[in-house]
Amino acid sequence: MTSVDPRRAIANLKELRELTADGNGAQRVAWTDTWLRAREWFRAKAADLPLEHHADTAGNHFYTLPGASPATLMIGSHLDSVPNGGWLDGCLGVLAGLEILRGIALQYNGRPPVTVRLADFADEEGARFGRSLLGSSAFAGTHSIAADRQRKDKDGVAMEDALRLCGVEIDRFPEAAAGRANLAAYIELHIEQGPVLESLGLPLGVVLGTKGVERHAITFHGQEAHSGSTPMRVRRDALAAAAKLALEIRSIAGAHPDAVCTMGSVKTFPGIVTAVVGRCETTLDQRDLDAGVLAAMLHQARDASERFAGEEGCTVDWSRIWNIEPVPFHPAMVGMCEDAVRETCGTAHRLPSGPLHDAAEVARAGVPVVMMFVQSLGGMSHNKVEDTREEHLELAVGAFDRLASKVMDWIER
Amino acid sequence: MTSVDPRRAIANLKELRELTADGNGAQRVAWTDTWLRAREWFRAKAADLPLEHHADTAGNHFYTLPGASPATLMIGSHLDSVPNGGWLDGCLGVLAGLEILRGIALQYNGRPPVTVRLADFADEEGARFGRSLLGSSAFAGTHSIAADRQRKDKDGVAMEDALRLCGVEIDRFPEAAAGRANLAAYIELHIEQGPVLESLGLPLGVVLGTKGVERHAITFHGQEAHSGSTPMRVRRDALAAAAKLALEIRSIAGAHPDAVCTMGSVKTFPGIVTAVVGRCETTLDQRDLDAGVLAAMLHQARDASERFAGEEGCTVDWSRIWNIEPVPFHPAMVGMCEDAVRETCGTAHRLPSGPLHDAAEVARAGVPVVMMFVQSLGGMSHNKVEDTREEHLELAVGAFDRLASKVMDWIER
Repeated sequence: MTSVDPRRAIANLKELRELTADGNGAQRVAWTDTWLRAREWFRAKAADLPLEHHADTAGNHFYTLPGASPATLMIGSHLDSVPNGGWLDGCLGVLAGLEILRGIALQYNGRPPVTVRLADFADEEGARFGRSLLGSSAFAGTHSIAADRQRKDKDGVAMEDALRLCGVEIDRFPEAAAGRANLAAYIELHIEQGPVLESLGLPLGVVLGTKGVERHAITFHGQEAHSGSTPMRVRRDALAAAAKLALEIRSIAGAHPDAVCTMGSVKTFPGIVTAVVGRCETTLDQRDLDAGVLAAMLHQARDASERFAGEEGCTVDWSRIWNIEPVPFHPAMVGMCEDAVRETCGTAHRLPSGPLHDAAEVARAGVPVVMMFVQSLGGMSHNKVEDTREEHLELAVGAFDRLASKVMDWIER
Repeated sequence: MTSVDPRRAIANLKELRELTADGNGAQRVAWTDTWLRAREWFRAKAADLPLEHHADTAGNHFYTLPGASPATLMIGSHLDSVPNGGWLDGCLGVLAGLEILRGIALQYNGRPPVTVRLADFADEEGARFGRSLLGSSAFAGTHSIAADRQRKDKDGVAMEDALRLCGVEIDRFPEAAAGRANLAAYIELHIEQGPVLESLGLPLGVVLGTKGVERHAITFHGQEAHSGSTPMRVRRDALAAAAKLALEIRSIAGAHPDAVCTMGSVKTFPGIVTAVVGRCETTLDQRDLDAGVLAAMLHQARDASERFAGEEGCTVDWSRIWNIEPVPFHPAMVGMCEDAVRETCGTAHRLPSGPLHDAAEVARAGVPVVMMFVQSLGGMSHNKVEDTREEHLELAVGAFDRLASKVMDWIER
């Protein structure tokens, strides 16, 4: 633990907000001028420390404090935001990280026992091209160029062209994986973006990993019919089957402590007041930290959808939108994070992360990883009302500094 | 019962289809050239009978066979169709009516004991301006000009202007009510447009009246939340409350033999795969022939919606889209229709009509009314696949002729 100054991190967060937010919230969307301006601002902020700056071929920026050993502790997060985003999502981790590095540089007279590197990953949000975790997945070597090079933004600009304007060639993404050389551990501080810590009255949480996700489009096919002339008993109402599934997924998730299942979209066809619904298109998002639980929930939802379709004289088809496996964090790292949080505020609650983070990509590459969460007010994020109490932010920076010290010791041993 | 020729009615229906349908179905939308052409064609068809033709100020056309008594039996329906409509909806009643008049004229040497009049009501479908039963409601005196004169079609043409091009001044609509003078009874033959008669294996049905309708927009307000970070137990899921109501309305309707309740439209907001539904907009359409049942079902649905909203931490608001009271037909007329159907095919099944018809407007004016239904294949209508077996059409014209004779006798007595 160093003599870190959490107030400076908070002041910087506010300065960044002034620079890159408007009346609707933060506008640091990756591969835009505002984002480039934020990164320039950050580079200037880091200039008074003895850090080596470099960018990799995927547009990730690194600030390195070389140590006696090349074995590296990486502290990371992202400066990019969603459109109309909050003042903490992502940039908290980067600006807290800068203060941790400042404290380490001071404590060790610029030469710590292990190398410490701050990462500002590119395009965590995927807000412009719909591909989240872009920079960190290139860093982790999990990125497939083929899947993404055809992406366009809403104005039809190709991802490839937008990246080139920022000095990044998508064909050179695979070279970014070389940046993992000597990487011994990775830690990330982030706002929770959910209501769990607030509901428990806790400022900080220890993140067990990121949940796996199964995301499907589910369509029920019944028979469109006149609402006035079609008796109830002969209807084949696609909405009825979908409604049963919308309720059943709560039981399916409810059988597991941290699992969630969400039907976020329902569309009815023809969708008019005078017609029984002939086709109902829904989406299902299922998440859990345990791959077995996730697979079981998917199986149960499929079975239930077929049962309900049968009961209502309908058919159902599924198509996968996207999925990702759960990424549990490193047990020893989770233990160190638990110690750091307990030493800071007396209680260490462990929780999985529903949202994905750059940490998940780094962990998928086999690097020991842990994350720390700080409470989000009202569980709100991706929104200008996103907020966290300043005393909690101060506790977070302090606890995260403790974690960094513990992990440096662990790497050194 | 006269010596009516059902085959001639069927041949005329096919001729009208040739004249006014394209590959997508019938195109006799009211206040269009195709509709005017259909009416001209029909007037020529009627020209070989001793009928007096006149149009009223609402664009309804009448063909009168004057009788010894001015007391009048009216036989009516409509030649207009929805876009891409079927070959029977509306025009069956007009073309069958023409054959009934032909038989009566023949039987009584052109001078029946009571006056018989065929009505081709204008714009039953409301397809162009969204106002159904337009001509018959003017005839019934239930039409309010103020509510409709501002209507425009999808191209922005005002209803008032479109009617003027067809020689109809909307300001003179109220004069159409005078046409009910001496009107003693009204009968209408129509396709069922539903699956009931087919499911019972019956060609014909006796219509008890048109169901009343309560039509509401119901919106549940919950809390939008991240699908990954929001535990199931703290969610305020507007879709869950709506799904409960979508299922509950089936129990509400199921308590009454002919009642129907339909949730035809569900819209979710923000409506994305990664967000718990914060707002869910639904529609509810409820129908029954009994005003007390209809009121009770509305009350039960309101109560249920509030209970479900409460259970899910949501609120709910209702707004009425439209409603109309049930219109039961005349008991003695229903009895005569039952006799005519039983004499024709051995069994007389009574059923309410879910869809509205011109007959409902005439009945609302206090005129004794009944309708007869003929089976619809697959219950399909408002669609080019709408169809009825020709042997059933023949039975229908014969039974309808029996009904006309019975009603003429009843008027005469």
